[in-house]
Amino acid sequence: MQARGIHHLGVAVENLDSALATYERLFGARVEHRATVEDQGVRAASVRIGESRVELLEPLGQDTPIGRFLEKRGPGMHHVAYEVTDLDTALAELTTAGADLIDERPRAGLFGLEVAFVHPDSVHGVLSEVVVGG
Amino acid sequence: MQARGIHHLGVAVENLDSALATYERLFGARVEHRATVEDQGVRAASVRIGESRVELLEPLGQDTPIGRFLEKRGPGMHHVAYEVTDLDTALAELTTAGADLIDERPRAGLFGLEVAFVHPDSVHGVLSEVVVGG
Repeated sequence: MQARGIHHLGVAVENLDSALATYERLFGARVEHRATVEDQGVRAASVRIGESRVELLEPLGQDTPIGRFLEKRGPGMHHVAYEVTDLDTALAELTTAGADLIDERPRAGLFGLEVAFVHPDSVHGVLSEVVVGG
Repeated sequence: MQARGIHHLGVAVENLDSALATYERLFGARVEHRATVEDQGVRAASVRIGESRVELLEPLGQDTPIGRFLEKRGPGMHHVAYEVTDLDTALAELTTAGADLIDERPRAGLFGLEVAFVHPDSVHGVLSEVVVGG
């Protein structure tokens, strides 16, 4: 599979507003999108840093994916998303390449993106996402 | 400070050759540089995935920065590097912005890059590097 590049880096944070202020101050980040997504248990912002993109993810509670990540690992990098041209093709090629998919079919991610996650055990411990660029 | 974007994502791995094979197979990564740097305690490869870049970092021993990271956290994302136009200016601006710098002056990074690290406590748990793009 040929990914087009890193679409975004997903970062788990304790407090979204505080993290946003830090990324704006230190790296010149500009907010692109913000959303609270109850069924994914996150309050999130997508920021642009130059040409790149970081997603800051604050859990809505402890019993959410990001809440459990923070409990176990503390704040820090959570996943990396690679941009692909077509998600169905990418998932078929990843399966052929032996990757263990968390999402066997595309699903709705944040900010209207279509996404799928690859299990970190298939990528040397890195939770990796594929996404069609928007 | 206005970073130009993500220069690379640094990933700690147990075995460089195995990780390279995975990134080539799953994401179409192409090797850009390889180096063994004794005084930094790493065997490393820089790969391009589309327009983006990932550094895969295998420790030369347990008592190295990457060795200690693997011991404590297991394999996974280690740092993110942001590209800047001028490193002295970036470090001055980061200091003014209240960041705690690990490197107060530019130092030699991998692959001939000039780099400096910002303490993860200043960036909500994310070890962040600034680098002049090459």
